[in-house]
Amino acid sequence: MPPRRPDTHSETMDGTMKLLLRAVRGEIVPRPPVWFMRQAGRSLPEYRALRADVGMLESCRRPDLVCEITLQPVRRHQVDAAILFSDIVVPLQAAGIDLDIVAGTGPVVASPVRTMDDVTAIRPLDPTDVAFVDTAIRLLLAELAETETALIGFAGAPFTLASYLVEGGPSRHHAKTKALMYGAPDVWNALCARLAAITRTFLEVQIAAGVDAVQLFDSWAGSLSEADYRRFVLPHSKAVLDGLSVPKIHFGVGTGELLPAMAEAGADVVGVDWRTPLDVAASRVPGKVLQGNLDPCVLTAPWPVVASEARRVIAEGKKAPGHIFNLGHGVLPETDPDVLTRLVELIRNA
Amino acid sequence: MPPRRPDTHSETMDGTMKLLLRAVRGEIVPRPPVWFMRQAGRSLPEYRALRADVGMLESCRRPDLVCEITLQPVRRHQVDAAILFSDIVVPLQAAGIDLDIVAGTGPVVASPVRTMDDVTAIRPLDPTDVAFVDTAIRLLLAELAETETALIGFAGAPFTLASYLVEGGPSRHHAKTKALMYGAPDVWNALCARLAAITRTFLEVQIAAGVDAVQLFDSWAGSLSEADYRRFVLPHSKAVLDGLSVPKIHFGVGTGELLPAMAEAGADVVGVDWRTPLDVAASRVPGKVLQGNLDPCVLTAPWPVVASEARRVIAEGKKAPGHIFNLGHGVLPETDPDVLTRLVELIRNA
Repeated sequence: MPPRRPDTHSETMDGTMKLLLRAVRGEIVPRPPVWFMRQAGRSLPEYRALRADVGMLESCRRPDLVCEITLQPVRRHQVDAAILFSDIVVPLQAAGIDLDIVAGTGPVVASPVRTMDDVTAIRPLDPTDVAFVDTAIRLLLAELAETETALIGFAGAPFTLASYLVEGGPSRHHAKTKALMYGAPDVWNALCARLAAITRTFLEVQIAAGVDAVQLFDSWAGSLSEADYRRFVLPHSKAVLDGLSVPKIHFGVGTGELLPAMAEAGADVVGVDWRTPLDVAASRVPGKVLQGNLDPCVLTAPWPVVASEARRVIAEGKKAPGHIFNLGHGVLPETDPDVLTRLVELIRNA
Repeated sequence: MPPRRPDTHSETMDGTMKLLLRAVRGEIVPRPPVWFMRQAGRSLPEYRALRADVGMLESCRRPDLVCEITLQPVRRHQVDAAILFSDIVVPLQAAGIDLDIVAGTGPVVASPVRTMDDVTAIRPLDPTDVAFVDTAIRLLLAELAETETALIGFAGAPFTLASYLVEGGPSRHHAKTKALMYGAPDVWNALCARLAAITRTFLEVQIAAGVDAVQLFDSWAGSLSEADYRRFVLPHSKAVLDGLSVPKIHFGVGTGELLPAMAEAGADVVGVDWRTPLDVAASRVPGKVLQGNLDPCVLTAPWPVVASEARRVIAEGKKAPGHIFNLGHGVLPETDPDVLTRLVELIRNA
C-alpha cells in the first residue's frame, strides 16, 4: 500500500502537521522550528550567481527564479520553512506604481506620494497583476510536497510601504512620512487604506495558491511611538490581517515598546528583534507565540559565541507559549552561510 | 549697593541655582527646564551662514566660532541650557587620529582600527590638545555670566566612538564593530579603555573650564542587546563618568531596553528617545531624573499637534523625580526654528 498522501500541503507525509505550524498553534514540540529572515539572498553564492545579470524586481517576477531562490536556503540549511522570495514593493509595482530597486540604495519611487490626488491615483491590485506569484508558489509546493518544510508567504505592511512612497525611497528618520501623518491625517489614512487593500490582495493570492502561513513585515514601525502607532498604523495593519485563513506572523525592527500594540493587529506570532529578550517580550504579549531573535551580527562571531547566544535565545523562548527560532532581523549579506547551516544543526539537536 | 555676584557660574545673579541644575538634583521646580539636542546646527539660518565656508571640524576648533554657534540657539529660543558646539570625533582628531567629517556622510576614518597594533597606536589625549575647547568655554562663560543659562559640556561614549573607528565611518548594522567585540574581546576592551581615557580627559578639560554639567552621547548603543551592553560597553562608560565633579547626563537612541544598564553607568540624568514614554522609562529606572523625549519629527506637524505632544511629554515626565524637557533625538536640519522658539514659550508657561 502506498503511503497515505497528506490532505493538504500543511500536513507532512505521515499526516501530522508540520513542525512550524504546530509551534504556531502553541502545541508542545520537541524543539523550536527554525528559519531565517532573508535566508534567500546575498549570503548565498548560488544566489549571487543567479542574480548576476538579473535585476531584483525582475527576479521577483520570474516564477522559475522565485522558486529556485526560495529553495536554495532550504537545500543548504535544512530550515523548517521556506519564505517566498519577493520584495515588499512587488505588489506596488504590480499595481502600476513606477518604482525600482536600486542596488546599494533600495526602493526608489519615481513620483513620491504626498497629496490626496497622488493617493487616488493608486489603483487596487488585481490578482491577475501578480499571477507570477501564484505560478511561483505552485512550482514551490510541487517541490516541497514530499517534505516537512512549510512555505511562508510575504508582504510589507502599510506603514512601511507608505514610508517608501512618501519619502520617495529609504530614509533614516521618516520625517516626511510623519509630517504627512500629523499634518494631513485624511491623506495619510486614505493612503494606508489603499496600501492595506493592495497588501491584503497580495496575501490572498498567496494563500489561495497554498502557502502555509504568511509574514507581514513592518520594517520601519519601530520608528514610531506607541501612541502614534496605535492612532495611525494599527487600524491599517489590522485590516490586512483580520480574517486571513492561514497563521500570521507580524514583525518589525526596534519594536520593543510596540509589541503589545502589534500583537493587537491580529497575528498569531509576533516577531521580536534582538534588543528585547524573548522572556521580556513574552511578558509584554502574554499568550502570543514569539519568533526570533538572535542578533544577525552574532553570526560573525566565533562559533562558541554563536552557540552560546543561540542557546540563550532558545532558553528565553521557553517563557513564551511557543517559539519559532529566527534572527532578530534579516541575514546580513556578509554572513558565512556555513554558520547558518551549523546553527540549524544546533537547533535541530536542541 | 551692586547686586551680589554669584559665587560660581552655576548660580544665577540672585544666588540661587540655575533651573537646569535644580532639576538635575531632583528639586521641585516650577516648570521643566528645556533645551534641544543639536539646537546649535543646521536648522538655524545664522548657523548655515556662518558654516558656509568653514568645514565642520575646523568650526569645532575655532573658539570664536564655537562660542558664537553655541550661543545662537540661546539667543533665538531662550532655552535654559547651551550645549557646547562640538562633535564626538573632535577629541579623536585632537589625539592624532586621521579622520574628517564629510558633509552628507558623517565621520570618515582614514585607517579603520581592527587589530591590537591599531589600538596601541592610539595615544592618550593631552589637555593641551584641546586647548581650543578651554578657550571657547571661557568665552562662553563670560557671555553667559549675567544669565540663568546653564552650559552643558559634550562628549561621545566609547562604544559609539569605537564603532566609527572600527567601521571606518557611519554604518547601519555595526557588523564589523560587533565582530571585533565578539571575536577579539581583548582588542575590543583595549580599544574602549583608550577611548574612555580620551573621553574622560576631554570632559575633564571642559569641567575645569567651568561647564555646569556634561552629556555623554552613546548614539549607537541602542544597536546592542542588554547582555552585550553590560558585558562590552557598560564598564567603559562607567570609567568615563565615575567621579566627575559636575552633573552628568547619559543618552542614546533606541535604548528602551538598555535604560536600567545605562543608568548604572553613573549618570545623574538618563536621556530617553521618543519610543519609550517617560512614565514607562521612570518605572524602568526608578529614582533617576529623565531627559526627553518629544519625537523630533513632531516639529514638522501643525502647531496644535506639537503643543499636544509637548503637553503629553510634560505630563508623563511628572512620573520621574525630575524632568528636563528635550527632544528624543537631535533637531532635524529641516526643522522650522520658529517652532522651536514657540515650543520653548509653551514650556516656560507650563
